[in-house]
Amino acid sequence: MTSNSLEKIRRRLKVDALLFWSLENIRYLCGFTGSDGALVVTSQERTFLSDFRYEAQASAEIGKAIFKKYRQKIEGVAQFLGGLRIKRLGFEANTMTYEDYRRLQEKLSKITLIPLAREISHLRACKGPEEVKKIRQAIQIASRSFADTSPRIKPGIREKTVAEILECRMIRRGSQKTAFPIVVASGPRAALPHGVASEKKIQEGETLVMDFGACFKGYHSDETKTLLLGKPSAQQQKIYEIVRQAQEKALKAVRPGVKLREIDAAAREVISRAGYGKYFGHGTGHGLGLAVHEEPRISPKGIGVAEEGMVFTIEPGIYIPGWGGVRLEDVVLVKGRGCEKLTMLPKGLTENILIF
Amino acid sequence: MTSNSLEKIRRRLKVDALLFWSLENIRYLCGFTGSDGALVVTSQERTFLSDFRYEAQASAEIGKAIFKKYRQKIEGVAQFLGGLRIKRLGFEANTMTYEDYRRLQEKLSKITLIPLAREISHLRACKGPEEVKKIRQAIQIASRSFADTSPRIKPGIREKTVAEILECRMIRRGSQKTAFPIVVASGPRAALPHGVASEKKIQEGETLVMDFGACFKGYHSDETKTLLLGKPSAQQQKIYEIVRQAQEKALKAVRPGVKLREIDAAAREVISRAGYGKYFGHGTGHGLGLAVHEEPRISPKGIGVAEEGMVFTIEPGIYIPGWGGVRLEDVVLVKGRGCEKLTMLPKGLTENILIF
Repeated sequence: MTSNSLEKIRRRLKVDALLFWSLENIRYLCGFTGSDGALVVTSQERTFLSDFRYEAQASAEIGKAIFKKYRQKIEGVAQFLGGLRIKRLGFEANTMTYEDYRRLQEKLSKITLIPLAREISHLRACKGPEEVKKIRQAIQIASRSFADTSPRIKPGIREKTVAEILECRMIRRGSQKTAFPIVVASGPRAALPHGVASEKKIQEGETLVMDFGACFKGYHSDETKTLLLGKPSAQQQKIYEIVRQAQEKALKAVRPGVKLREIDAAAREVISRAGYGKYFGHGTGHGLGLAVHEEPRISPKGIGVAEEGMVFTIEPGIYIPGWGGVRLEDVVLVKGRGCEKLTMLPKGLTENILIF
Repeated sequence: MTSNSLEKIRRRLKVDALLFWSLENIRYLCGFTGSDGALVVTSQERTFLSDFRYEAQASAEIGKAIFKKYRQKIEGVAQFLGGLRIKRLGFEANTMTYEDYRRLQEKLSKITLIPLAREISHLRACKGPEEVKKIRQAIQIASRSFADTSPRIKPGIREKTVAEILECRMIRRGSQKTAFPIVVASGPRAALPHGVASEKKIQEGETLVMDFGACFKGYHSDETKTLLLGKPSAQQQKIYEIVRQAQEKALKAVRPGVKLREIDAAAREVISRAGYGKYFGHGTGHGLGLAVHEEPRISPKGIGVAEEGMVFTIEPGIYIPGWGGVRLEDVVLVKGRGCEKLTMLPKGLTENILIF
């Protein structure tokens, strides 16, 4: 995000200053990596405000931005804004709580607070080369950690144990944290799209959905494998292949300029035609970066088009209650006349059959 | 939280229904452990709303509460509330974003939305026996993992490596996640209250602040040790003993009925009298439970008194820029005529000197 594009937003919305409240946007715009603070952007300068705990850290991280210390967040931010002599302030309405808004407005009776949501939601959607590098690094950590873990996946092991091994491998390989609770969902549990690893033991003959992500310098990876434990049944093969085709179709649809909902439709059509439309209840993908879920959204309601530099997931799935499910997820970078798949683990059927 | 006390809140605030938006309160009030949803409480019933991904999980978790599925959160919640024929709705203003509030109010023009902040902030402050058990379990996981890790702390090891070992031990011992990024701050970095582990190598003669927490069934632990690496200097000993005395004073001040700010004052006075008041920039403690930071706040501005069943930290510290710092943190349960210290790792000076 150049100062230039922020300035465009400021002018288009006719606000004198922008108040950023989310840690992701603050990190993106000034480099601060801690857990609390606020950023004020005017046409003149960027001022990062935080408390005592982050004084030394902020000074080291925020470069040209100015640091101001507060004792109490709302009071400190209000006092600073009050001193700017501005009339209209745009704020991050998608992150600031109603209560913070209310207290801030109460203290700034002379300033009109303008809620910004969609107007700034795409701020981080297109990634620069340095950001893509960090996402690649997170993906590499996750892939290698998966490779370390997969030999341990055998009938009798608990889902939780698999998740623990994978999480520890990611941490030891440099992931700052797990991007989200690791999904290890076997047999009928594979029908839970967010089937966080449980005490259940994995059995031969089951499908096993694993969804996991690492975090490197604030940037995330996100990938889903579906493993077939032993020789797959005809039903397992069929469902797997439908999801695989849906994913391929969507991957092929990605290029600069294509409508996001067309990418979703490409995957959805394959699944619907095969008669499983009602078992694919979520969107096809989401942007990925400083947040695990961010803009753009690849769904039937997705607004806008794919743009060069966007990084998002393609993850269709079929979830049949009582039976199980299959989801395949890769991450793509929109570029040139199509996209580059950043994730590396193979998604083909035969490569995902484990024989014991 | 019995239905009884929720009903009292509802009546006192004269609202027909309460809308809960935070995952912690939702988990607390209906048992759902997933990552998205909303809970509506009326005098008649509790209704939990979430999407497709959580249909099966919610049904298994929410007991007597009713489950309603939505496609889009705001639309689904608004539709459900619209059907209740209510006039006044209290909502969690400390969690709901301004944008969600705005969209909800737009769709519910006939309902008055009443922002609730302080009115419900103490909902989870007093813990029941089952909750205390889970916190104890989290503490045990963290303590044992620290014991596993401490033999590895030697001059030359990187802060990050120590954090990685500790995090993996916690996960393998049953922690669902690390409660927050582990602080491993050595030498001058110990002056950073939130000095997340860096690439810095630990040196003999330094102080080493380690702040870490585990998570068990949603409940957290939080504890800080300060280690002295080799024979401590007079300055190190002095600062350590001041913090230790401050912590002891605060711990002794905890009993049902005592003002929270008196507990803070007990610690602060010791540090101020010793001449280090300006190096203790944060509050003395915070409540701990489903969130790592929750009510009550033990600070100069803390409101209210300690009550039986409250669980909070006592964590004074001295941070001297350029030199380093010391923080000691334990967790207490308010009970009987005083409190029980739930954390177990020793905080005495001699027990925290590592000789190589």
